[in-house]
Amino acid sequence: MLRTHTCGVLNLSHLHEKVKLSGWIQRSRDLGGMTFIDLRDRYGITQLVFNMEVNAELCEKARKMGREWVIQIEGMVTERSSKNKNIPSGDIEIVVDVINVLNKAKTPPFTIEDHTDGGEELRMKYRYLDLRRNPVKNNLIFRHKLSIEIRNYLNDIDFLEIETPFLIKSTPEGARDFIVPSRMNPGQFYALPQSPQTFKQLLMVSGMDRYFQIVRCFRDEDLRADRQPEFTQIDCEMAFVDQKEILDTFEGLIKHLFKKVKNIEFDSIPQMTYADAMRLYGNDKPDLRFGMTFVDVTNIVKGKDFKIFDDAEAILGINAKNCASYTRKQIDALTDFVKRPQVGASGMVYIRYNEDGTLKSSVDKFYTEEDLKNIAMAMEANPGDLMLLLSGKLEKTQKALSELRLEMGNQLELRNPSEFAPLWVIDFPLLEWDEETHRFYAKHHPFTAPKPEDVELMSSNPAAVRANAYDLVINGSEIGGGSIRIFEKEMQNQNFKLLGFSAEEAQAQFGFLLNAFEYGAPPHAGIAFGFDRLCAVMSGVESIRDFIAFPKNNNGRDVMIDAPSEVADNQLDELFIKLNEIPQ
Amino acid sequence: MLRTHTCGVLNLSHLHEKVKLSGWIQRSRDLGGMTFIDLRDRYGITQLVFNMEVNAELCEKARKMGREWVIQIEGMVTERSSKNKNIPSGDIEIVVDVINVLNKAKTPPFTIEDHTDGGEELRMKYRYLDLRRNPVKNNLIFRHKLSIEIRNYLNDIDFLEIETPFLIKSTPEGARDFIVPSRMNPGQFYALPQSPQTFKQLLMVSGMDRYFQIVRCFRDEDLRADRQPEFTQIDCEMAFVDQKEILDTFEGLIKHLFKKVKNIEFDSIPQMTYADAMRLYGNDKPDLRFGMTFVDVTNIVKGKDFKIFDDAEAILGINAKNCASYTRKQIDALTDFVKRPQVGASGMVYIRYNEDGTLKSSVDKFYTEEDLKNIAMAMEANPGDLMLLLSGKLEKTQKALSELRLEMGNQLELRNPSEFAPLWVIDFPLLEWDEETHRFYAKHHPFTAPKPEDVELMSSNPAAVRANAYDLVINGSEIGGGSIRIFEKEMQNQNFKLLGFSAEEAQAQFGFLLNAFEYGAPPHAGIAFGFDRLCAVMSGVESIRDFIAFPKNNNGRDVMIDAPSEVADNQLDELFIKLNEIPQ
Repeated sequence: MLRTHTCGVLNLSHLHEKVKLSGWIQRSRDLGGMTFIDLRDRYGITQLVFNMEVNAELCEKARKMGREWVIQIEGMVTERSSKNKNIPSGDIEIVVDVINVLNKAKTPPFTIEDHTDGGEELRMKYRYLDLRRNPVKNNLIFRHKLSIEIRNYLNDIDFLEIETPFLIKSTPEGARDFIVPSRMNPGQFYALPQSPQTFKQLLMVSGMDRYFQIVRCFRDEDLRADRQPEFTQIDCEMAFVDQKEILDTFEGLIKHLFKKVKNIEFDSIPQMTYADAMRLYGNDKPDLRFGMTFVDVTNIVKGKDFKIFDDAEAILGINAKNCASYTRKQIDALTDFVKRPQVGASGMVYIRYNEDGTLKSSVDKFYTEEDLKNIAMAMEANPGDLMLLLSGKLEKTQKALSELRLEMGNQLELRNPSEFAPLWVIDFPLLEWDEETHRFYAKHHPFTAPKPEDVELMSSNPAAVRANAYDLVINGSEIGGGSIRIFEKEMQNQNFKLLGFSAEEAQAQFGFLLNAFEYGAPPHAGIAFGFDRLCAVMSGVESIRDFIAFPKNNNGRDVMIDAPSEVADNQLDELFIKLNEIPQ
Repeated sequence: MLRTHTCGVLNLSHLHEKVKLSGWIQRSRDLGGMTFIDLRDRYGITQLVFNMEVNAELCEKARKMGREWVIQIEGMVTERSSKNKNIPSGDIEIVVDVINVLNKAKTPPFTIEDHTDGGEELRMKYRYLDLRRNPVKNNLIFRHKLSIEIRNYLNDIDFLEIETPFLIKSTPEGARDFIVPSRMNPGQFYALPQSPQTFKQLLMVSGMDRYFQIVRCFRDEDLRADRQPEFTQIDCEMAFVDQKEILDTFEGLIKHLFKKVKNIEFDSIPQMTYADAMRLYGNDKPDLRFGMTFVDVTNIVKGKDFKIFDDAEAILGINAKNCASYTRKQIDALTDFVKRPQVGASGMVYIRYNEDGTLKSSVDKFYTEEDLKNIAMAMEANPGDLMLLLSGKLEKTQKALSELRLEMGNQLELRNPSEFAPLWVIDFPLLEWDEETHRFYAKHHPFTAPKPEDVELMSSNPAAVRANAYDLVINGSEIGGGSIRIFEKEMQNQNFKLLGFSAEEAQAQFGFLLNAFEYGAPPHAGIAFGFDRLCAVMSGVESIRDFIAFPKNNNGRDVMIDAPSEVADNQLDELFIKLNEIPQ
């Protein structure tokens, strides 16, 4: 037996017990006649003590061992003279009798400490060392706990976890697939699933009723900073439910998770239509931890010969409470911020409502004090406030002002990482027009049902059709999304047609689903949550990477194992493929 | 709301309640003035009743609806006059007021009954209909329950479920990889994992201590009847444990599962060395539900001028108790059985120990009654028994006699599907010599540690080295296997050398693991269970296919979605690959 206890459990209740511990040397200190070693494992740290006077040979041996060596010791639990109140085992130490080196260690390339000196690249290469650090280790433990709670909650309400295949069929709709050449079916390829969407719908047709799966999904997209080619989804589907029932069910899940894992309780999660979210926050995933909602001042500010406003489709503003004291320099910085290409505004107008009741703006030339007061009234601004206005095309202005609002939220520290503001955004548009390809795309996916009252619009004004689709948003991050599904072949065909599929294309790609709809498909609906993202958001962290044990970098590489890599020619031959010339 | 209850819950306690139900029409019967419909969902069946006299219009409507239509009804729970004691809802029926057709259904291509008229191919194509049948549905529910119990058991003893990547690196060792071309890294490929072996070992190096994962794995092998290209593994690893501790831990898991899911309790699971398993059963996964162990009669039967035995390396026999009454025809059939190419024996010798104490054999020409009595004594045969002997090369004879033993077990109904005989097989050989490629292969995998007492043999007699490797066998099926791992770089290099890897090859393929071993790797060990197989064996079923929601056929095809399939040329272009000429 290599240990009787872990390094996290011993305390005064174990006094005078003989114990065996195994673990890593976190640090050691020589204090003249005494040597102290902090022994670490997943569960904590226990202090070992060696005394030159009692056992010089053992103490010398201990002094020669370096950081991250793996050792096993035997010794007796004793009370510490100077206690460490920061750790559970801080009241005791082990007076060591026997020490065995289980494995030596080279000095690690970065320090195994909460705040390490290692850079991102180095930590990725030695990920197995990075995982020894508390912050990363605790993320994975958090993720594990969350997965256990998710499964038990859903199991308790009759959901079945059913595994769907990973080797499926490539479809041109949606993001780019990873494909897998088939050796047994020469010239043919599997695709890795972007989600188990069609399979979970088939499970509803099969009567499985309440399905879930925590499942890996794959998308071969150019990676932004916080995307991974493989990611994990909490994938769910229910039959015989309406929208209220499915939202209630998963609101229950989210509340359960926050209660169990973070001890935070929510009232019911508010709902907001997509239209309102865009109108008030310029964003379909608004951060509700703070207000600063948009005010449309288009009708108030036009007609004063300020050409920029007169020419604009929309003039929208936010009221930054108590920011009248912003300096010229701060305001200039905000102007620079909105002019960044990622934000895309051409300029910003400010109106400062001074404490003394006077008003000062960047457009004083065009607007009288009276005019400014009217704007202030519309924006519910009071003395001491600062109004920020952007103008232009509606959508572009919404997007830019949303960025500005979030930036102001950051500056004013209104986005508290330990506060959580969940929100259902509902009634998304069914379709999205793409100027480039000149066609409609499904806003959610092609299986989403239109709102019954909007079905007529599908022929007359498709862009106006709203879907029974919903997103769960927390603190400005989209955590999950889903929809009521189409479950009738004719409606599904009508939708495919709007998306530019010919009947033949629809049949070739989704024939199995369309056929299934003819054999007794029940009404059904579903939702999927991004599990990596959920872990990060619940931890108040922006990046998902440190919630993934072995993530890939922005080139889709695992730099630790050095994948992807070249393969042997005979592997390619067996698969009936060869390489094209590779651009240098 | 589409339903107030499911079709499995209503009983006499709900009498006179108004309810809404939704489900599929299992069957309907017209009995003159009355129409009965069995409404089915995942949870059960509830009888609906319609009365021509009470509501002719509704009754007519009901009569027009076909099998598998999806309907919603409202009605009142009433007591049945003729009760059905076979189903929980058999005491009541629903007198229906309102009926809504939610979706019509074409007549399914096979009956949705426990014993269907549909053939394998048809059921695979319409898998979503096959999943409606109780036997298949119940398998998936069983699988779900098992997965929940596995996770909770392991979570309770501090195991963490940690997800490892699916897009990893191809290694030539072991089975054939599925590979995935990388668009962002032209000319390079990911591989899908055959198991998370190296990642779980890295997690041990990272200090994660107790890891598990229920995870999909992939092998591009020619598929035998009961293999799938993707399969699910319960993958586990522990640090700081010896063999006893890891076997105890997972023995606990298996006992927990049988207790929780099947209400079967085991004593501790017996252990048998690989050497004994081969000697007594000719098989490293013996079915212990019955005895009929091998007896080596080589020394007894030689030297009587029976050339076949005199020339044989080994002569092994089994004693089929109480089978002396086997007819000549039955014995001939057994001889034909062992001569089948899959079994591979060249003939069979029988010795019948008649009830009257006389002996009759197929080799009476060479053996006296006295000789035969000596053989009988060695084989612990009594009057009424039948001895069956095979001879030849030792390994071939063991294999053939093992097949014969299992066949006799089947014929004598000694392999009861509701009885379970688990067994640990331990002390496997480290290496396996391959005559064809003239090299050693790892019997388990290249990371398995030799038994400490056999390390010296690694240079002198590698074939004799035993490994600290173990399999869990139930009823003749290998359910899981694992080993104590090598955790020191030098030992790992020595093992790679035995396997014919040059230092460069080892570094190129497994450098990340060898490097990790230099940074403080703890002693560790692991095991992996085949989850599909575990489900099947615990259900007393041979085939894994019906425990997988959407399995593939023997050509690796999903005939329902028709995958794999051809992909667009531009997809291949983006991946810098093209097709070779496909053989017709």
